[in-house]
Amino acid sequence: MNKAVLAFSGGLDTTVCIKLLEEKYNMNVITACVDVGQDKEDIKQAETIAKKYSYKHYTIDAKDEFVEEYVYRAIKANAIYEGYPLSTALARPLIAKKVVEIAEKEKADVIAHGCTGKGNDQFRFESTIRAISDCKIVAPIRDLNLTREEEIKYAKEHGIEIPSGKKYSIDENIWGRSIEGNILENPDVEPPEDVFMWTNSIHDAPEEPENVEIEFDSGVPVSINQKNLEPVEIVKKANEIAGRHGIGRIDIVEDRIIGIKSREIYEAPAASLLITAHKSLEQLTLTREELKFCNIISEKYAELIYNGLWHEPLREDLDKMIDHMQRRVTGSVTLKLHKGSIRVVARDSPYALYRKEMVSFDEKAIDQREIAGMVKNYGIQALIYNKMFR
Amino acid sequence: MNKAVLAFSGGLDTTVCIKLLEEKYNMNVITACVDVGQDKEDIKQAETIAKKYSYKHYTIDAKDEFVEEYVYRAIKANAIYEGYPLSTALARPLIAKKVVEIAEKEKADVIAHGCTGKGNDQFRFESTIRAISDCKIVAPIRDLNLTREEEIKYAKEHGIEIPSGKKYSIDENIWGRSIEGNILENPDVEPPEDVFMWTNSIHDAPEEPENVEIEFDSGVPVSINQKNLEPVEIVKKANEIAGRHGIGRIDIVEDRIIGIKSREIYEAPAASLLITAHKSLEQLTLTREELKFCNIISEKYAELIYNGLWHEPLREDLDKMIDHMQRRVTGSVTLKLHKGSIRVVARDSPYALYRKEMVSFDEKAIDQREIAGMVKNYGIQALIYNKMFR
Amino acid sequence: MNKAVLAFSGGLDTTVCIKLLEEKYNMNVITACVDVGQDKEDIKQAETIAKKYSYKHYTIDAKDEFVEEYVYRAIKANAIYEGYPLSTALARPLIAKKVVEIAEKEKADVIAHGCTGKGNDQFRFESTIRAISDCKIVAPIRDLNLTREEEIKYAKEHGIEIPSGKKYSIDENIWGRSIEGNILENPDVEPPEDVFMWTNSIHDAPEEPENVEIEFDSGVPVSINQKNLEPVEIVKKANEIAGRHGIGRIDIVEDRIIGIKSREIYEAPAASLLITAHKSLEQLTLTREELKFCNIISEKYAELIYNGLWHEPLREDLDKMIDHMQRRVTGSVTLKLHKGSIRVVARDSPYALYRKEMVSFDEKAIDQREIAGMVKNYGIQALIYNKMFR
Amino acid sequence: MNKAVLAFSGGLDTTVCIKLLEEKYNMNVITACVDVGQDKEDIKQAETIAKKYSYKHYTIDAKDEFVEEYVYRAIKANAIYEGYPLSTALARPLIAKKVVEIAEKEKADVIAHGCTGKGNDQFRFESTIRAISDCKIVAPIRDLNLTREEEIKYAKEHGIEIPSGKKYSIDENIWGRSIEGNILENPDVEPPEDVFMWTNSIHDAPEEPENVEIEFDSGVPVSINQKNLEPVEIVKKANEIAGRHGIGRIDIVEDRIIGIKSREIYEAPAASLLITAHKSLEQLTLTREELKFCNIISEKYAELIYNGLWHEPLREDLDKMIDHMQRRVTGSVTLKLHKGSIRVVARDSPYALYRKEMVSFDEKAIDQREIAGMVKNYGIQALIYNKMFR
Repeated sequence: MNKAVLAFSGGLDTTVCIKLLEEKYNMNVITACVDVGQDKEDIKQAETIAKKYSYKHYTIDAKDEFVEEYVYRAIKANAIYEGYPLSTALARPLIAKKVVEIAEKEKADVIAHGCTGKGNDQFRFESTIRAISDCKIVAPIRDLNLTREEEIKYAKEHGIEIPSGKKYSIDENIWGRSIEGNILENPDVEPPEDVFMWTNSIHDAPEEPENVEIEFDSGVPVSINQKNLEPVEIVKKANEIAGRHGIGRIDIVEDRIIGIKSREIYEAPAASLLITAHKSLEQLTLTREELKFCNIISEKYAELIYNGLWHEPLREDLDKMIDHMQRRVTGSVTLKLHKGSIRVVARDSPYALYRKEMVSFDEKAIDQREIAGMVKNYGIQALIYNKMFR
Repeated sequence: MNKAVLAFSGGLDTTVCIKLLEEKYNMNVITACVDVGQDKEDIKQAETIAKKYSYKHYTIDAKDEFVEEYVYRAIKANAIYEGYPLSTALARPLIAKKVVEIAEKEKADVIAHGCTGKGNDQFRFESTIRAISDCKIVAPIRDLNLTREEEIKYAKEHGIEIPSGKKYSIDENIWGRSIEGNILENPDVEPPEDVFMWTNSIHDAPEEPENVEIEFDSGVPVSINQKNLEPVEIVKKANEIAGRHGIGRIDIVEDRIIGIKSREIYEAPAASLLITAHKSLEQLTLTREELKFCNIISEKYAELIYNGLWHEPLREDLDKMIDHMQRRVTGSVTLKLHKGSIRVVARDSPYALYRKEMVSFDEKAIDQREIAGMVKNYGIQALIYNKMFR
Repeated sequence: MNKAVLAFSGGLDTTVCIKLLEEKYNMNVITACVDVGQDKEDIKQAETIAKKYSYKHYTIDAKDEFVEEYVYRAIKANAIYEGYPLSTALARPLIAKKVVEIAEKEKADVIAHGCTGKGNDQFRFESTIRAISDCKIVAPIRDLNLTREEEIKYAKEHGIEIPSGKKYSIDENIWGRSIEGNILENPDVEPPEDVFMWTNSIHDAPEEPENVEIEFDSGVPVSINQKNLEPVEIVKKANEIAGRHGIGRIDIVEDRIIGIKSREIYEAPAASLLITAHKSLEQLTLTREELKFCNIISEKYAELIYNGLWHEPLREDLDKMIDHMQRRVTGSVTLKLHKGSIRVVARDSPYALYRKEMVSFDEKAIDQREIAGMVKNYGIQALIYNKMFR
Repeated sequence: MNKAVLAFSGGLDTTVCIKLLEEKYNMNVITACVDVGQDKEDIKQAETIAKKYSYKHYTIDAKDEFVEEYVYRAIKANAIYEGYPLSTALARPLIAKKVVEIAEKEKADVIAHGCTGKGNDQFRFESTIRAISDCKIVAPIRDLNLTREEEIKYAKEHGIEIPSGKKYSIDENIWGRSIEGNILENPDVEPPEDVFMWTNSIHDAPEEPENVEIEFDSGVPVSINQKNLEPVEIVKKANEIAGRHGIGRIDIVEDRIIGIKSREIYEAPAASLLITAHKSLEQLTLTREELKFCNIISEKYAELIYNGLWHEPLREDLDKMIDHMQRRVTGSVTLKLHKGSIRVVARDSPYALYRKEMVSFDEKAIDQREIAGMVKNYGIQALIYNKMFR
């Protein structure tokens, strides 16, 4: 019998996969659950289910690596895809990497995942696995073309306890939650309050605003309200503060890798808070030329992550540029959080390119007369064009 | 004596200009105040001051033209420059155009404006004036290199009543307010509540959320809450609703045309509401290829407006493309407004590219097995790269 | 028996397809050969073979439509993909359209093509067919995973005369020839002289240079050497002249749609000549802002064509913008052709934005002192940056 | 009397400047001629003139630094601005840097240059000088608004020998020659043969083609025809070989920094040869994602150089990315040079992403059937769009 390592979450898809792999593919299944900051109960549930059905189980704590090697890069790049701060997409290459490590340790020949054929994660998992491993890849749900209903039927027939019925299809890690399925599939229906777990409703958010000061060093957050924290703790704290004020609920229609449009709900309080602050500090410290180029980089970086191309060499190329630029994105930003709204209200940096004497109405750092000639000769080509066609 | 038409707001700069033009340039000054939706009191004050000091005065109502020919284009392009929805920048070419029309009617040889040499508006005014007129341009404050203090001194010496002392330098039109100067110049100081006039503070905003439905036809809003309104009325209504809920306060550091960074405060409730809704409808109706290209267009369009290049032929070129694409941006969007927060919660369109049967976990519109080969052969080049360097 | 219309070239792949469709798919095969300017002998050969093996045959002359609706758009967009002027890629959507028209006329249920699974044309054919028709698509060579060797074996077994053995795999239309396969597959081997048919070797090219004047109206060529010609005649003439001088040989490694790199040889004399001339005229008549944006458009337009996305709405959107801009790309360009080299040596346009008095060392149209202030305040942000880190 | 260091070429402009600086600005003038590979006679002439008129003279050999720190970066970035390989633009920041070094050594307070107010070089010189020095900058020709005629008059009146009358205004360095002025100002006149000095006419070029093999290591050329050469020698050799075959003549209309269009003639044989080879090697070794991004980088990099923004931090940021990517641009390229034409005919690299087995018609490395599903689900959104509007 072949040995397969299965990326395991404890949900319906991956639980059914254990049995399918045994029965239809004749494999011994080692389950691997990678902790990237999802709900601890989910990890425990995964362990309980694994104990029942799998040959062997691993739980791997990858939270530090996730924040330091993935989330921090996403912050530096302001990586947002069509409005989505890329939580799930960002964790997939790391989960795949950890699963590959288990496969090497266990000398397994096969790596399996529970993705369906309609989603993005199949691309993200497989492109990483193929990039760093020679294991065969098996995706039972997709390869047998099962619907959710058929999975449930299969589970019942094989005596698999169906994991406690979640209303929605949820994925969670420290950088955000994504919620889809059920009535949310209809983009014209408002999501009910019960899809949100990390963010207060605006009603329940505190009556009083809270000013939060985030300090960045070389593009990454290092302290909140002047208290230095470890990376994972910073993100947790940011989730807690922003979530308390109802910040980070996202409701979009997005374009999946294969071109399907789907309606997605996300909760990403820390991402909303930290990326807003980060962008604001860039605005103070980077030149206009750099800022314009950053927009191009951001979009491409986000696209690479979303599309599961973490291992594209372009991603590394971009990192070199980003890291160099971010050396100056150092300083502090104060944001006012209140009832679901977030607004930068102050920012400061030793590398600020802002110069008060140049702006002020009361100073003569710039001789205004020197500017007159610039204005006169500005837009010469548009001028010739307009004279020609007037 | 030469005749000069002065773009007139009734503020300190332009009031001082009347006298300077007479005294230092030996000109008869015709003042022209263009109504693009600013505070009616300001227009009245301008008229009162003009009556005292100028040779002749015009007030021109350009609100309809402003919304239909400028604001609507900005909505279709999602035109936002570094976070700023371009209110002042958008009105400048129209104000200049109206002033040129007066100059033609009055057979004036000179067009004057009160801009200083540190700001953006000198570029925006002059590039339009030069594009559509052969009048000489005079900018007394800049050309005499006066500071605000020197202006005040000059006003006092010449018996000019200084317009009722505003704490900040403010510009207003129906698409937004901009507030700068004074303590706001320091980007590390939180703006006091008194800079805001159009938006409730979050404390004062209603306790209950409000769902607003905006209907678009070919990229422009045509009704709010199922009530059809004329263009100017739509924008007013949008300002009122969003302002009531404390939406549209913006606090940024931005890059001026000549490269100075400055801290700016804006209030733009209608712009925040309508552009958010518009983007969300595009996401439903345009292809991914179109959406990606829209980002490029948006950025370039906003840059052209900000930089005073309304008369660049590229702006017209872009309009042709935008108009064609926007034919399908038709439908309705529902947004939840609450305590300064804004969130799209539903959207619908006859041209939606969304197809439920493709997304749903319960349907077989896509045979998942067909996708397997796509996944396997995805990112081939990244794969070869990684195998090479592993 | 189902009726299938097969896009037919008379080559090995499509000839084998006739038999496969009959035998393995149980279909009556109507062959359709679309004349987009390929070698007339090939069209005749296709007819001869069709007469032998197919149920019914059509030859459709689509040359005019190809040049006017496809090639002219490519010229206006300067559409070149990684160095390749897109001849085959450009014709595929038109061929597919013509085949669909036959299918409608013949009430066929199936459209078939002979593409393999490694190339680009399967994407180009099928995306057009699906966009404009509901016929089922069949691709026998790919779907049966046949190699060339297996095809030859199959042909022999079924008494199919193998079309006169071409050394290379060739595709031809009026906009260019593409040559691949055999020793050309190795990117480190110089292509032998016998791959080229439309261009003289430099040895055989005339000893004397030839100056050619091309006149454009609204972005498309209308005359050569002051002689007005119909679209198809213009392209033929351009091929003849440029080919005579050995111009238009292209040797590149390109990235196919699925991500494979392949070495390709092209011959595109008219494309080289006309696009070079066209770009040069744009340089004279469009603003710098427009030219920079044209680069973005060109790249995207070429990518859409190459990737078989002619029916993407973005292509139409781009056309609206291009057409508006091209109104001013009117005038004449003179190119010196000599021994494989091509150089623009003169250009003129009624819409030129060039103004001699602004450039000349002997004129005072610009007061140089006015520029001093511009220079002084140029690159302010880079200056602050450098002072900070000096 | 103040001490001024003058960037000195020995031409009319800078020679007149010596006298103007003494007479009108009351300065002692130290002339500095920076050798970046221009004609040795010009350097000698500069020395002779300097001996006569200036207080002190320096000739600085900066050829190695120019090639290693500037030209090599331009090659790695494929830096070409609107068709121009940036020879003059690339040398300006280095010349300015060398002049600043002399000013520091000589404790001068002023740096002077001979640029007029219509050109690009004033921006390029001054932005560098301001970035790295606090010296005052003086530009006598521009600041006194002199025409060429007025300069000649001034020279005669002050007994200045006018440097041997060149027909054109020429600038030269090892990376290229630029020729402008006189009849060349008219973009509709073919340049006469006598403007070219480094390239044979096609008539005079050898009858026989020559295959040249260029080897690159990490994006820069290291050998020609398998002979390793020092950087300066490589570029000289490339100029010699390509020039012999008549390669590198460029005739364009370009957009100057202030927006004037001007017609420019360039000779850049080495640049044409080396950048063509370099791009071809990138095509073999970089992924499609990287190649597409390289186009963006190239355009921005060239724009920064052309616009005199060498000291923009974005340039350094881009270099970090480029250097990382270029590690794999290692290998050899063979080009066929013949009678003004240049064609890549072979290329090889240890990091090639090309895989013969994937492309070949005779191999089964890819199962074609796997591709069928990809094709079927390709361009889904365009499909929905077309079905909707059909």
